[in-house]
Amino acid sequence: MSEVESAIMRLLRPRSVAVIGASRDPSKIGHQVLKNILSSGFRGPVYPVNPNAREVLGLRCYASVLEVPGPVDLAVVCVPAPLVPGVVEECGRKGVAAVAVISSGFKEVGNEGLERELVEAARRHGVRLLGPNIVGICDTVTPINASFCQGSPLKGEIAFISQSGALSIALVGWTALKGVGLSSLVSLGNKADLNEADFIEFFGKDPHTKVITAYLEGIEDGRRFMEVAARVSVLKPILVLKVGRAERALGAIKSHTGSLAGSDAVVDAALEQCGVIRVPTFVELFDWAVALAKAPLPKGENVVIITNGGGAGVMATDAAEQYGVKLMDIPPDLAERLRKYMPPFGSTFNPVDLTGMATKEWYKGALLEALRDERVHAVVVLYCHTAVTKPSDIADAILEAKREAGVEKPIVASLIGGEECFREIERLTREGVPAYESPEKAVAAMGAIYKYSRLRERLLSAKTYPELKVDHEGARRIVEGALREGRTALTPFEAAQLAKCYGIPVLEKRLVTSREEAVKVAEEIGYPIALEVESPQVIHKTEVGGILLDLRSADDVARGFDTILANVKARAPHAEIKGVVVRRMAPRGLEVLVGMHRDPFFGPLVAFGSGGVLVELVRDVSFKVAPVSLEDAREMVERTRAYSLMRGYRGQAELDVDAVVDVILRVSKLAVDIPEVAAVDINPFFVYERGKGGLAIDVKVLLRH
Amino acid sequence: MSEVESAIMRLLRPRSVAVIGASRDPSKIGHQVLKNILSSGFRGPVYPVNPNAREVLGLRCYASVLEVPGPVDLAVVCVPAPLVPGVVEECGRKGVAAVAVISSGFKEVGNEGLERELVEAARRHGVRLLGPNIVGICDTVTPINASFCQGSPLKGEIAFISQSGALSIALVGWTALKGVGLSSLVSLGNKADLNEADFIEFFGKDPHTKVITAYLEGIEDGRRFMEVAARVSVLKPILVLKVGRAERALGAIKSHTGSLAGSDAVVDAALEQCGVIRVPTFVELFDWAVALAKAPLPKGENVVIITNGGGAGVMATDAAEQYGVKLMDIPPDLAERLRKYMPPFGSTFNPVDLTGMATKEWYKGALLEALRDERVHAVVVLYCHTAVTKPSDIADAILEAKREAGVEKPIVASLIGGEECFREIERLTREGVPAYESPEKAVAAMGAIYKYSRLRERLLSAKTYPELKVDHEGARRIVEGALREGRTALTPFEAAQLAKCYGIPVLEKRLVTSREEAVKVAEEIGYPIALEVESPQVIHKTEVGGILLDLRSADDVARGFDTILANVKARAPHAEIKGVVVRRMAPRGLEVLVGMHRDPFFGPLVAFGSGGVLVELVRDVSFKVAPVSLEDAREMVERTRAYSLMRGYRGQAELDVDAVVDVILRVSKLAVDIPEVAAVDINPFFVYERGKGGLAIDVKVLLRH
Repeated sequence: MSEVESAIMRLLRPRSVAVIGASRDPSKIGHQVLKNILSSGFRGPVYPVNPNAREVLGLRCYASVLEVPGPVDLAVVCVPAPLVPGVVEECGRKGVAAVAVISSGFKEVGNEGLERELVEAARRHGVRLLGPNIVGICDTVTPINASFCQGSPLKGEIAFISQSGALSIALVGWTALKGVGLSSLVSLGNKADLNEADFIEFFGKDPHTKVITAYLEGIEDGRRFMEVAARVSVLKPILVLKVGRAERALGAIKSHTGSLAGSDAVVDAALEQCGVIRVPTFVELFDWAVALAKAPLPKGENVVIITNGGGAGVMATDAAEQYGVKLMDIPPDLAERLRKYMPPFGSTFNPVDLTGMATKEWYKGALLEALRDERVHAVVVLYCHTAVTKPSDIADAILEAKREAGVEKPIVASLIGGEECFREIERLTREGVPAYESPEKAVAAMGAIYKYSRLRERLLSAKTYPELKVDHEGARRIVEGALREGRTALTPFEAAQLAKCYGIPVLEKRLVTSREEAVKVAEEIGYPIALEVESPQVIHKTEVGGILLDLRSADDVARGFDTILANVKARAPHAEIKGVVVRRMAPRGLEVLVGMHRDPFFGPLVAFGSGGVLVELVRDVSFKVAPVSLEDAREMVERTRAYSLMRGYRGQAELDVDAVVDVILRVSKLAVDIPEVAAVDINPFFVYERGKGGLAIDVKVLLRH
Repeated sequence: MSEVESAIMRLLRPRSVAVIGASRDPSKIGHQVLKNILSSGFRGPVYPVNPNAREVLGLRCYASVLEVPGPVDLAVVCVPAPLVPGVVEECGRKGVAAVAVISSGFKEVGNEGLERELVEAARRHGVRLLGPNIVGICDTVTPINASFCQGSPLKGEIAFISQSGALSIALVGWTALKGVGLSSLVSLGNKADLNEADFIEFFGKDPHTKVITAYLEGIEDGRRFMEVAARVSVLKPILVLKVGRAERALGAIKSHTGSLAGSDAVVDAALEQCGVIRVPTFVELFDWAVALAKAPLPKGENVVIITNGGGAGVMATDAAEQYGVKLMDIPPDLAERLRKYMPPFGSTFNPVDLTGMATKEWYKGALLEALRDERVHAVVVLYCHTAVTKPSDIADAILEAKREAGVEKPIVASLIGGEECFREIERLTREGVPAYESPEKAVAAMGAIYKYSRLRERLLSAKTYPELKVDHEGARRIVEGALREGRTALTPFEAAQLAKCYGIPVLEKRLVTSREEAVKVAEEIGYPIALEVESPQVIHKTEVGGILLDLRSADDVARGFDTILANVKARAPHAEIKGVVVRRMAPRGLEVLVGMHRDPFFGPLVAFGSGGVLVELVRDVSFKVAPVSLEDAREMVERTRAYSLMRGYRGQAELDVDAVVDVILRVSKLAVDIPEVAAVDINPFFVYERGKGGLAIDVKVLLRH
C-alpha cells in the first residue's frame, strides 16, 4: 500500500479519531461532527479537543491534540480558518496520519495565502490533508460518520466522492430514500492536498467498493486522473458527474470554488479514453451505479426485451437506440419456444410482447427461455401494471427465473405503476435485478452496463504503438531556430518541413514574385507544376484565369507566370496580387483535417475530422489525448462522418484510411516528442484512393516557450 | 358545440351509462368495468346489459340495450368482438350518443374486416365510437371510471389521451403515487372512429382541463391534427409523447397496433409548427404538464436562479443552456439588494448563491427581491438539504414570498434531499410552485414553460404570406405533359422550366452531343458561355481539361467543344463521354438546397439546408410543413449552420438571405398549387452577396398521379 493509500485508509477507516474544535454548543459544527461520530457506531476511541472545555458530550476533552493519550489516526478539524495551520502542525507532531479540515475560509473566499500556509504545514510534517472546506467523511465499513451531514448513508457498495459539500449532505438523504447504499462518502472541498485521483486509486483496491461515483466541478491534474482512472476502471466502473458544460457555468463554478473547468468536448474525450462513464445528472449517477453494482457484465451484445405492453416496448426500443443497447433478432427456434408464453396475437419480434394477458407463468417461462439460450446475453423485462397480474407476481417470476436459469447474465426491469410497483422495484433491486419506474430508465441502466463493458474491453485489449521513423533532430532544429528568434509560430515553409521530418506527406509549394524565381523553384521541386495566383480578393481562381495546371518545363512555367498575372489584371483589376504560388500538381482528394492542441488540464489533444474552410460549421471532429495508439487513431477516424465518405460514399472509390491513421499517429508522436510545439493544424489534408495515400496541403504550427 | 364535441361530452361526462357485456364473473372485464363505474362516485343511472343474467352487482340487468327504460348517453361494450357490430347497431337504434368499445380482436390482431364492419354500423346509425381495443375512460369531473383500470386517477387539470391501453392502466397508479391529478383519461385503442385530434379539440374547450397530454404511436390524420393543435395550443399547452424514434421501433409498433409511424424528423417539425411540445418520456410528460398547469406564463426571458449550493447552481446552469432557459445578467442595483441575504463570500452572479449558510429569511428576502423586480420574469429556487435550514422552512419561505410579492411570475423549485424534501416537494407543487427532486428537472420544467410560451407567441403573431407572381398555367402544362406520357419525373430541362414558371432563378443549361448543337444552344441562351464535359468517370473536370469558361462567340464555342473532347480523351482515355453541357457562366456562390417532399401523414414538407453533393453527411437541414409563411421561411434559414455562413462568416461578405427565403416560399407555393408534384430538389442553389440574388444550378422534380 502506498503512503497516500495508507493515509486514506486511516482517513476513512480510522481506529481512533480526534475532533479538534469539538464544541458543547449544539449549533456549532464542532458539536454536530462529534455527535455524528458517536452515534454512527464508531468503535474506536474518540478524543474531543478544545482548550476551553473539560468535557464534551460526556467525553473528556483535551486542550491540544498533543495531550491525547493514545495514537490518533484521523483528526477532524473544525476550528476557525486562521488557527488551522497551527492545528495541522500539532497533528504532524502528534503523528496523526490524516487530517480532514472541515473549516472554511480559505481559497473559496479568496484566502489563497492561508491555504498555501496550511498545505506547507501539512507537507512539513508529513500529514495528508482532506479539504479544507468540506462536510467531512462517512464510511459505512468502519462505520463512522465524521461529518456534519444529518444522518448516515445506507450501507452499500458504491463509493461517492463529491466536490460539493452541500450536495454531499443533500445526497445522504436522497440516496437513503432511494435505497442506494454507499461504502464511503468523501467531501473533497478545495482539494488542497488529496484529490479525486487519490480517492479513485484507493477505492479501486477497496474490497468494500464495487462502483466508484464522483461529482466533480474541475479535475485537478488531468494527466494523473487519466492514468489512475485507466488503471482502476478495468477493475470496477467509475461514473462521473462532471458539471460545467455551459459557458455560463464556468462563471458559476469560479465564483464558488476557485476551480477551473476545461472545455467540455475535451472532458468528454478524456473521460471516455480512461474508461470513465460520464453521466448527465445525479439521478443517473446513482441509477447506473446501482445497475453496475448489482448486475454481472454481459458476455455479448444480444439483448432481448420482454414486455406485456406494446407501448412500453416501443419506448424501450427508442431508448435502446439512444443508449447503445443492441436488440437481438430473435432466432426462429427461440421464437418458437417463446410462442408458448403468449396468445396468438403476441409478438416474438424483439421486444417480445407477451401482451396484456401475460401471467406470472408466461413471464417466468419466457424469461427462462431467454436466459437459458446461449445466444442471448442480457434481458430487459418490462411490465405495465394490469388487472391480470400483480407486480409482486412479476417480481417473483423474474427472481425465480434468474435463480432457476443458473446463469450470470444482466437482467434489468421496469415496473410501471403505483405504490405496489415501487415496492417491487426496491425488492428486485435489492435482490440483484436493478429495476426502475420507466422503460427508458431501465434501458439507460442496461446501456451503462454495456458502456462500461465496452470501455473496459477496450482498455484491456492490446494497444499498438507502431514504430514510426522520424527525423527528430531535424524537427528540433526547426523548432529551436524559430524559438531563438522569439517567434510563436513557424513560417508555412518551416511548418511543411517539420511535417516532412515527421514523415507526413506534404505538398511542396512556394510563393514567388518573379518569373525567374518561379522557374528556379519549379526546377527544385520537379514537374509537373501548377501555378496559382495568391490574392486575398480572388476566391475562385479558375474564374479569373488565375490557375494553370500541368506545366512540364521551365519555359512553360515562365510563360505561365506572365499569363496568370495578365489574366488576373484583366479580369480582376482591383485585386491585390501577393505573388504566384508554385506547387507540384496535386490531384484533389477528400478534405480532412488532423490537428493537435494542448489542453491545460489533459495535455496534448489530437483531433481528426472533416476539413476545408468550413470546419467550424461542419463540426465533424473527434478527439483523443496523446499518445494515441493505432486502435485509438482508427476509432477517431471511424467516429466521424468523413469516414462514411472514405469507405466509399454513393458508389465512389474507397479512400486511403490507413494514410490518415498514419498521419494521426505522427502528429501524436510530434506532440509527445516536442513539448515546445503548442499546436498543429493540417487542413486540408487530401485523402486519395486506397493505396494512393494522401497529402497535407496546408500546415500551420504554433510554438510555446 | 359540434356534433363530435357533444358526442365526446356524452362519452366522458355521461348522464347515464349502459355496460353491454356486464358479467357476474369477477375475472371478466365486463364485471370489473361495471364495478369501477359503481365505485367511482358516478351519480347517474347505470344499466348492465347481458341476456344471460337478471342481475349484476345488485343492479337489474337487461337483455339488450333496446330494453333499457331511460335514455343512454354512453354504452361501454365488453362483448366478444364478433358480436360488437350488432351491439353498436342496437345502440344506434336506441339513440346512444357514444359507444366505448373495450372488446379487442379487431385490426390489432389482423381482423380489418370486422373493424370495418363495426365502423360502418356506427356510421349508419350516427353513433360515435371510441376504440375498439381500449381500457375505457376515466373522468374525474363527472366523476366516472368506465374502464378496467384498477383505481381511479387523482382529480386534477391534466387531460391524458393514450394510444396504449396497458400504459393507461399503469399510469393511473403512477400518476396517483406522484400526486399528478387528471381531468380525464382516454384510451384511444385502434382509433376506428374518434382519434387524438377529436379529443384535443374537445379538451381545448374543456374548462376543467388546463393542459392536454397524449401518448401516441402514430398520428391518424397529420393535416387535421396540425390544424386542430394549432388552434388549441394558443389556448392551453399540448404535450405529446410520440414514440417510435428508432428504426426498429417501427417494427414493434406495427406488430401491435397496425399503426404506421412517420419519419421522426418530420414529426418533430410538424409538432413544433402547430405549437405542440414533444417530450422524451412519460416522466417528463407529467413533470412538465404539472409545471404548465400550476405556473403562470412569464412575460419575458429573464430568469434568476437562487441556490444555497454552488454545485446545484452549476447543474442548473448546464441545464438552462440545454433547455433554452435564459439566465439574466443581474443588474448592479438588484445585486446590491440581494447582497443583504448572503455572507460576504456569497455570489450575486446568476445563479445567485446564498451559500450553505442560507436561512429561511435569506431565501425569502432574496426571492422577494427577485419577484418584485420588474426586470425579472421567472425564478428557479434550488435548495440542498443542510443542517442550517429545514426543507419545510424553505417551502414556507417560497410560498410566503410568492404571496407577499403579489405578482404572477413562474417559480419552480428543486429540493435535494431525503424524505422531508419529498414531502415539501409535494406541498410546493400543490400550492402552485412546481417542485422537483433535482435542479435539472426543475430547469427542464421551466424550459417547458418557456417553450410553450414561445410556441404560443409564434402562433399568435401575424403570419405573412407574400403574394408571389407565378405562371401557374405554364407550370401545369409542363406537369400534365409529363404525366400524359406516363412519366414520374420531369426531364432536367422541364424541371428548370417549371422552376422558372414559379419565379425561381435557374441556370440555363443543355446537354449537347455535337459542335453544331453546342453553337445552336449557345446562341439561344446567350454569351458568355461555359462548356463542361459530362462523364460519370470524370469527377474533377478541371484536372482533365474538361471545362472551358467565358466563351464569348459561336466560333469560341465550336472550337471549345472540340478542345474539351480532345483533352478528356487524352487525359482520361477510359472515361465514357455523355456529351458536353452548354451553360451560361454562373459565378460560384454558397451551395444550399431547397426541397420539398410529401409526407404520407403531414403532407408537403419543405426543406432548406446546406447543399452540395455531401448533404447527407453534413445533415444541416430544417423542415416546415407547407404552406410556409415568410416568418416560417426565415426561421428555417436561421436554424441552419448555413445561415452563419450567409451572415458573413469569418469576415466574408453577407449573402442574399432574402433570395433564399423567396425560393423557399415559391417551392412551398408550388407544393400547395400542384399536388401532382411529388418532390422537388433544388441542389445546389448558389447564394450570392446581399442584393445579388441566387441561382438554382440543378433542379429535379418527381411527379405522382
